Amino acid sequence: MTSPASSLPFIDLRSDTVTRPSAGMLQAMFSAPVGDDVYEEDPTVCELEAVSAARFGLEAGLFCPSGTMANQIAIKAHTEPLSEVVCEQTAHVYLWEVGGIAFHSSASVALLVGDRGRVTAAQVRDAIRPENLHYPTTSLICLENTHNRGGGTCYAWNDMQEIADLARREGIALHLDGARVFNAVVATGQRSEDYGQLFDSISVCLSKGLGTPVGSVLLGSAAFIRKCRRIRKVMGGGMRQAGYLAAAGLYALEHNVERLADDHRRAAQLAEALLQQPYVTDVLAPETNLVIFRLADRLPAVDFLRNLEEQGIRASSFGPQWIRFVTHLDVDDAGIERVLAALGKIS
Amino acid sequence: MTSPASSLPFIDLRSDTVTRPSAGMLQAMFSAPVGDDVYEEDPTVCELEAVSAARFGLEAGLFCPSGTMANQIAIKAHTEPLSEVVCEQTAHVYLWEVGGIAFHSSASVALLVGDRGRVTAAQVRDAIRPENLHYPTTSLICLENTHNRGGGTCYAWNDMQEIADLARREGIALHLDGARVFNAVVATGQRSEDYGQLFDSISVCLSKGLGTPVGSVLLGSAAFIRKCRRIRKVMGGGMRQAGYLAAAGLYALEHNVERLADDHRRAAQLAEALLQQPYVTDVLAPETNLVIFRLADRLPAVDFLRNLEEQGIRASSFGPQWIRFVTHLDVDDAGIERVLAALGKIS
Amino acid sequence: MTSPASSLPFIDLRSDTVTRPSAGMLQAMFSAPVGDDVYEEDPTVCELEAVSAARFGLEAGLFCPSGTMANQIAIKAHTEPLSEVVCEQTAHVYLWEVGGIAFHSSASVALLVGDRGRVTAAQVRDAIRPENLHYPTTSLICLENTHNRGGGTCYAWNDMQEIADLARREGIALHLDGARVFNAVVATGQRSEDYGQLFDSISVCLSKGLGTPVGSVLLGSAAFIRKCRRIRKVMGGGMRQAGYLAAAGLYALEHNVERLADDHRRAAQLAEALLQQPYVTDVLAPETNLVIFRLADRLPAVDFLRNLEEQGIRASSFGPQWIRFVTHLDVDDAGIERVLAALGKIS
Amino acid sequence: MTSPASSLPFIDLRSDTVTRPSAGMLQAMFSAPVGDDVYEEDPTVCELEAVSAARFGLEAGLFCPSGTMANQIAIKAHTEPLSEVVCEQTAHVYLWEVGGIAFHSSASVALLVGDRGRVTAAQVRDAIRPENLHYPTTSLICLENTHNRGGGTCYAWNDMQEIADLARREGIALHLDGARVFNAVVATGQRSEDYGQLFDSISVCLSKGLGTPVGSVLLGSAAFIRKCRRIRKVMGGGMRQAGYLAAAGLYALEHNVERLADDHRRAAQLAEALLQQPYVTDVLAPETNLVIFRLADRLPAVDFLRNLEEQGIRASSFGPQWIRFVTHLDVDDAGIERVLAALGKIS
Repeated sequence: MTSPASSLPFIDLRSDTVTRPSAGMLQAMFSAPVGDDVYEEDPTVCELEAVSAARFGLEAGLFCPSGTMANQIAIKAHTEPLSEVVCEQTAHVYLWEVGGIAFHSSASVALLVGDRGRVTAAQVRDAIRPENLHYPTTSLICLENTHNRGGGTCYAWNDMQEIADLARREGIALHLDGARVFNAVVATGQRSEDYGQLFDSISVCLSKGLGTPVGSVLLGSAAFIRKCRRIRKVMGGGMRQAGYLAAAGLYALEHNVERLADDHRRAAQLAEALLQQPYVTDVLAPETNLVIFRLADRLPAVDFLRNLEEQGIRASSFGPQWIRFVTHLDVDDAGIERVLAALGKIS
Repeated sequence: MTSPASSLPFIDLRSDTVTRPSAGMLQAMFSAPVGDDVYEEDPTVCELEAVSAARFGLEAGLFCPSGTMANQIAIKAHTEPLSEVVCEQTAHVYLWEVGGIAFHSSASVALLVGDRGRVTAAQVRDAIRPENLHYPTTSLICLENTHNRGGGTCYAWNDMQEIADLARREGIALHLDGARVFNAVVATGQRSEDYGQLFDSISVCLSKGLGTPVGSVLLGSAAFIRKCRRIRKVMGGGMRQAGYLAAAGLYALEHNVERLADDHRRAAQLAEALLQQPYVTDVLAPETNLVIFRLADRLPAVDFLRNLEEQGIRASSFGPQWIRFVTHLDVDDAGIERVLAALGKIS
Repeated sequence: MTSPASSLPFIDLRSDTVTRPSAGMLQAMFSAPVGDDVYEEDPTVCELEAVSAARFGLEAGLFCPSGTMANQIAIKAHTEPLSEVVCEQTAHVYLWEVGGIAFHSSASVALLVGDRGRVTAAQVRDAIRPENLHYPTTSLICLENTHNRGGGTCYAWNDMQEIADLARREGIALHLDGARVFNAVVATGQRSEDYGQLFDSISVCLSKGLGTPVGSVLLGSAAFIRKCRRIRKVMGGGMRQAGYLAAAGLYALEHNVERLADDHRRAAQLAEALLQQPYVTDVLAPETNLVIFRLADRLPAVDFLRNLEEQGIRASSFGPQWIRFVTHLDVDDAGIERVLAALGKIS
Repeated sequence: MTSPASSLPFIDLRSDTVTRPSAGMLQAMFSAPVGDDVYEEDPTVCELEAVSAARFGLEAGLFCPSGTMANQIAIKAHTEPLSEVVCEQTAHVYLWEVGGIAFHSSASVALLVGDRGRVTAAQVRDAIRPENLHYPTTSLICLENTHNRGGGTCYAWNDMQEIADLARREGIALHLDGARVFNAVVATGQRSEDYGQLFDSISVCLSKGLGTPVGSVLLGSAAFIRKCRRIRKVMGGGMRQAGYLAAAGLYALEHNVERLADDHRRAAQLAEALLQQPYVTDVLAPETNLVIFRLADRLPAVDFLRNLEEQGIRASSFGPQWIRFVTHLDVDDAGIERVLAALGKIS
């Protein structure tokens, strides 16, 4: 689709989910060996699950049609009814998964107020319910790294470590919503292989920064994944020749991880430019590929977005005055230049 | 049971649920005409339901074995899965009903931070989810009056009215957890008969300040109560000759409402005395029959309670340094004197 | 309530739930010591729970406001989501508890076709699901003794024993819906104390043949009952001074068990008379206090019931041509005579 | 994968889900225009949904990663908790979807005993629950055409019409599990476009006889599909650039429907041959592409399957003595010859 202002295609900053596979990725998909994955006979799916698990230091993986499914399966597997899940009040698993924690797991939530989405071990400790007939049982802690609503913020390793230590001491499971965990790994220089020491389970999205068309991988111990496979079945996530999709994931793990640094550099460029616009009052300092900023009261988000749209650029609002820009595989330096120029034309 | 310190019985300030029926109430109970209430043939239950509904300006009532059941039935009847319930973060329906909102109704929660439990129409409005594929649907707002965790605080009529207006405009149901609604009515001089203009449903507890052994009544429109009767059945709240319990409720509605003013006066006395104790750092100004106060760091709640217990007095902690006192039908002026004396002996 | 035909009160054969407490039972209720049972401080409730458990050879008990709640708590405690419950296709837990197995426990059902409600170990064995990704896990077997829909039929001890042996071998829990288990015990001469060797949990109803106004007791191991206490809380079954109701249960266990033989004798009298009526085509041979019979096509159940009602007798239909009579504490020999006379006046 | 007996590839009669895309289908997949389907911007997905809906005379469609998800979304959308679903006792939605009816919808089931899976309007009518406090509400009837467990049986149009008329009269929704509905259409000569007059919703599988790698389409009214889109989101079925998968569906609708007649002819050939084997005691007369047959007691299914496997042929058992053969796109006439030869070598 081309933009109304020119013959150029739209620049889509709404989300890193909008990317389309590169020619190389399409080629990999096209030539993948496949089988019936409900019978666990799709070799490409099996390889993706094994490679992903190894990349995060965990035993086994499960390919899922979406990150929402991967997260909700994990939550279901870690809890029983009469459980409570501890997470930040703007966590994706709570805020943007249609109330799935209650829907699938009949579990209550304890909501923490984080620092741009990041919570501390002390906060988590205070949220753990004591033994009492009137309370649900705290069964699961969910972290999100990077944190979407916080503007792509990264956890320091020590902070995650302290929460993991607490979880282990208390016998509570710890899940990572890793929709953008590779952004965190690349931005902080942490080793993804070490994550398995902290987390009982991790969902890793392949269709955001990594640029594949469809899918997430849920990672954990072999026994956990066996349990999750049955939950995936009842949720309708058992696909047949899913190897075509999985092949894109394998390609992305090889080719599209390190380059996330480019997305981060471009997000920083956007943030810098935004700080200089008279109509911008706040910019959450970007740590990865998300830039969240606030517009002056005189410029409602809806007007700002319409103006951008007319200049061939798409983004999304996070409330009446807040905007989110997302950089990704399909936005190159030329694209950033076009965005900067467009921002300059708004007043 | 007598206290260890004397031949006097314990003074139990843990809750107003601990009261035992007076001789008059017992007499009313055991002379009640009864029938099989599952067939809606218990005349005393029917009378209690009708009288309670009229008292709050609503059409119909449903007798339930507990306030938790009355609240959870209402939440279930007002929501469907993929709904969200708006309430204060320390609301009884969220905090102390074992995660029942998720358990029974598979509904998500939006948690507000109130002023001692009271929320405003503006806060509620901001919590209503816009139409979006990723969000549950806001289907129900729950208020609690008086608010237990807030220390027995009362809503001003106008504040409830504004929330009711908002709810009606938005097509969202409004439920009142009226576990101690009679305390609010007596303390503020509001007319209980007007409540039905604001709320779609109200749970009224009979076994707290009103002093009956068992039961709450859920009130609403005739159609709503018909729906609730079926939910009560599946929850196991369909009792047979429940008229013995209902008779206590009828007695209490006649004899034990106005006298709540005595409980409020006694709570004020306790608060005044607590303010003068060197080991007390904060007292939430009591508005009804609950007194919540904070102990100095040097005196943990567990030690304070043990000391009281040795003096023949029971109370409960609301955290490591917080205590709640509850006045009720079984604590008279002499009892208050004993408590004041005991407080003076702690240092 | 008196019947339209005379000054005599109605004879109510609809159910044994309609009984009203005798003077002795009322006296016991009236004078019971009570406390707050949510704090486990009601001595009468504690005694009833202990006495009931001992009577069935199990460790602990939990007083519940209804048999439906006792059954549904047990099912919930024995299963997790993705479980399946094996029961007879007309079992009360499946047929008459508003779909509670799905509602509370999100569990599937495997439905057997029994001999008047009684199933065999071979049938149960065939219903156990093999390990397979597509299947729920068989977690619970429910029996009902006597079986209501089967017409008050009793299990032979050996048949229950075989099912219990199978359940143990397969690691599947076994629950007994004992709504009328005392009728079975009295009719067969089995020892109630032995039941605990067969069943992991038993619900015993106090408000049917035993004649109390309200309540059932759920029995099981101490650990099981601890788990159930929390489920009872979320279902809203935590009552306060429930000792008034429990006292009736203790009285009934002492006075109203052996006399069930009278109800059985009277049911047999009714069955014999029914067999001789020209408008009756089938009578399920009564084993306890239920008589289920079929009317000739020319006499619809609704007409038959209207005729009886005009003669001061109530009963209930079990389909367009089927009727159920229930004998109980409030139907004496004179009452039976009246019923026999009334039957003779129908043609 | 090649078989142990030869250099030839395995012939896989386990299921029609095992097919791999043809070269033409692959070409269509990887040249498809795609977009982000969560934003409803994938043109190929939109086209598939519209084309499928039109093909069955319904308004709108929703692409799902599996038939289980399509069915379970429909069941959820048609019911509320305290509902009951009427289906045949071996229906896929009940038997092979991990108890999803209870898991997702908390709905009870009424199970009918059909004629090779087919039920009658009279049976359905008897299963509809009358209004009664003790019963769930019958909200949905599910048919399956062709019926898998019945051996690929087809409904006569009139029989479906009568059930549809009943459903409409009673205000109960009617869903078709159309996993193999194209087989029914081709075998009976019914017009798929007429199905929308009978059914409120239909799930159509693309990855069975039609030979695509992944996916089913759920069809219904526009309002129904809007509701389902949100349920798909919470279940995790919202995929991003799903057009690659949808393109295979569009290709299949054009190229792979009429040829199902070949699969049916081959199934008939297999059935005929099986009837002549001394070790076969029963063959359910095939109506489409499934052949279910019984082995003599002396030849357990497990031994028969091992023997076939050694001859390079795979199939699956439906119990200790029962076998199912499925013909599909990847089994041609030469393949059938190999199977016939292999059958002759077993004794």
